[in-house]
Amino acid sequence: MHSRPHGAMATIEQQLDIIKRGCDELLLEAELREKLKSGRPLRVKAGFDPTAPDLHLGHTVLINKLKQLQDLGHPIVFLIGDFTGMIGDPSGKNATRPPLTRDEVEQNARTYTDQVFKILDRAKTEVAFNSAWMDKLNAADIIRLAATYTVARMLERDDFHKRYKGKQPIAIHEFLYPLVQGYDSVALKADLELGGTDQKFNLLMGREVQKHFGQPPQVILTMPLLEGIDGVNKMSKSLGNTVGITEPPNEIFGKLMSVSDDLMWRYIELLSFEPPQKINAKKQAVEQGGNPRDVKFDFAKEIVARFHGQLAAQNAARDFIARFRDREVPTDLPEVKIKPDGLNVPIARVLKDARLATSISEANRLIDQGGVKVDGEKISDRSLMLTMGRTYLLQVGKRKFARVTIA
Amino acid sequence: MHSRPHGAMATIEQQLDIIKRGCDELLLEAELREKLKSGRPLRVKAGFDPTAPDLHLGHTVLINKLKQLQDLGHPIVFLIGDFTGMIGDPSGKNATRPPLTRDEVEQNARTYTDQVFKILDRAKTEVAFNSAWMDKLNAADIIRLAATYTVARMLERDDFHKRYKGKQPIAIHEFLYPLVQGYDSVALKADLELGGTDQKFNLLMGREVQKHFGQPPQVILTMPLLEGIDGVNKMSKSLGNTVGITEPPNEIFGKLMSVSDDLMWRYIELLSFEPPQKINAKKQAVEQGGNPRDVKFDFAKEIVARFHGQLAAQNAARDFIARFRDREVPTDLPEVKIKPDGLNVPIARVLKDARLATSISEANRLIDQGGVKVDGEKISDRSLMLTMGRTYLLQVGKRKFARVTIA
Repeated sequence: MHSRPHGAMATIEQQLDIIKRGCDELLLEAELREKLKSGRPLRVKAGFDPTAPDLHLGHTVLINKLKQLQDLGHPIVFLIGDFTGMIGDPSGKNATRPPLTRDEVEQNARTYTDQVFKILDRAKTEVAFNSAWMDKLNAADIIRLAATYTVARMLERDDFHKRYKGKQPIAIHEFLYPLVQGYDSVALKADLELGGTDQKFNLLMGREVQKHFGQPPQVILTMPLLEGIDGVNKMSKSLGNTVGITEPPNEIFGKLMSVSDDLMWRYIELLSFEPPQKINAKKQAVEQGGNPRDVKFDFAKEIVARFHGQLAAQNAARDFIARFRDREVPTDLPEVKIKPDGLNVPIARVLKDARLATSISEANRLIDQGGVKVDGEKISDRSLMLTMGRTYLLQVGKRKFARVTIA
Repeated sequence: MHSRPHGAMATIEQQLDIIKRGCDELLLEAELREKLKSGRPLRVKAGFDPTAPDLHLGHTVLINKLKQLQDLGHPIVFLIGDFTGMIGDPSGKNATRPPLTRDEVEQNARTYTDQVFKILDRAKTEVAFNSAWMDKLNAADIIRLAATYTVARMLERDDFHKRYKGKQPIAIHEFLYPLVQGYDSVALKADLELGGTDQKFNLLMGREVQKHFGQPPQVILTMPLLEGIDGVNKMSKSLGNTVGITEPPNEIFGKLMSVSDDLMWRYIELLSFEPPQKINAKKQAVEQGGNPRDVKFDFAKEIVARFHGQLAAQNAARDFIARFRDREVPTDLPEVKIKPDGLNVPIARVLKDARLATSISEANRLIDQGGVKVDGEKISDRSLMLTMGRTYLLQVGKRKFARVTIA
């Protein structure tokens, strides 16, 4: 975003260029153009679940886009969907989702926004809770809201469709939640709503409900879902493949250095704030024989700096170099995937499965002799467990390396 | 119901006998037996729409059953579903169903109960309005209620299933109404709910919702739907084939005398309060050559007496005889069905189509000459229209008769 025209200085075409960069879908572009032409700041809505206060890089794809819109002069409404959170799972089937109390919601919201404001400008962000208007609706209001949409169209939503066809139960209140989300757009008079690609149906619902209430429909912008560091699944806490934005600098740095070169480019595309020209130049350099490790290094520094500051980034980079100073890690490491029985795998089994040791007992002997390093650090504990979803750089002796992903 | 054991005097088996008489389904009989065994009076719920205050004999099939339960000592809750009536049709597709005001609801309720209390004992009937509890529910309560049932099971309801398969839209709020009806059973702590056969799904829903709220499920009793005087369709105001309980005595008497012999037995089965033994005796008498017209006559008197008193019934019977005194109506009348273009058919066309006149002009000439009688009354107006759904006894001269149904 540096060296780009911002705010009142950006033309409509420049704004559209910035808004569309990296997005999955913009519907409808013509409507957005009209709204931008009006010259007034657009109200930008993004909704968040009140139960998951640990942000990871996957979340920041969307938040970065909000930041760009904010820098273009559009007010951001960071909406916390506490109304449904305070209902919990009324079907009672999900014991892990009990209703949240008001206190818990507020506590979660603080944790949430503290993280979000590492990217967004706090002074220019409105934090809203949908309980503010949903608590005021009565039974009749919800029935009227439910009348705005049909069963058949709701069953067209991909996940509902699959569950219905697969004879998995869908409780009727699940049909009400997208409508509640749509009504949020009415209450907020949203001009533009952002969400992940998996939210497209719900975002479009906002348009329908707004039309029903006589409002001009919001434009919707979906952002791609970021893959986790395993490079396979979507980044998700439950899969253990995340880079959390509150993790320590060395942890973030190490995780980003561990990803494959392909995934690195994907991360850069969706997470870096470098201007596209500069990124293209780096790609060309690598194509012409440059070391992708240098690109990864700069990117890891950029991300650590974003969440911990420049100094922390420099320290993390120095620490990383120090850990790997004594040896050259080959660029053509064998990549090994290991399937855990549970959530963790004992280090000895990993060494054996990655063919860095011929047996469990040889692996244990190597550990005892101080010949095994994990992410550059010598280990001595036979009972060390490597965890699901993580990628590790393993080294035995001076020359045997493997990049191992537990997944 | 005369000469039957009532109230505390009835054994459980006698009660079950009375309750089951004429019903379509009783679910579950074993549960009802258990509830009766407890000895406490059962709370009997029957729900009514607040928009149709003109009761006809079709409605009374159910109300008669309520009367029997009342006479057995069980309190009746006559529930008026005003909550949904005051929402109207929120999809806005049905312009003829605007929201009712509180005043209109109360007005309708008075008209309604004035009619119902021609059958039920006012002092032993509780009139309830579901707005009393539904207005207190908020959006979260409705969402929790909606969580008690699944989309798939709701789509099993016959009419929903047909509409969904036929790609007819079902608005989502239509899924909420059966749940609201079920919640009414919770609010009323109903032991037994009565309804037409077309209400079976909704009555069963009450059981589900009660179980969810920790109440013992209500037993449900469905009553058959009464055919209209056309003998074909279900009795319904919109089909114009009703016998309204507030119609004048002569009107009710004449309509009942006009029905076919088959339909007469059906009406007697579902509407007469005569004990079964007495009805069986009449059937045998007719089988052995008795005139069904005498049975019809007694039945018409019974019904008129129910809604207008004994004196009115005697007068209606006398008037009917007077109208038909001068001639013998043959028992083997030709039965003619005439399809109207709109809602009415001019008398001349009916005479021609029923082969009582050879042409429209002959029909008009016969009317002018005073040779045409409709339901025993001489007519003189060529522009008389016969209306959809009604059955008429037409007579031309002394000997030409036809029973004509406009349908």
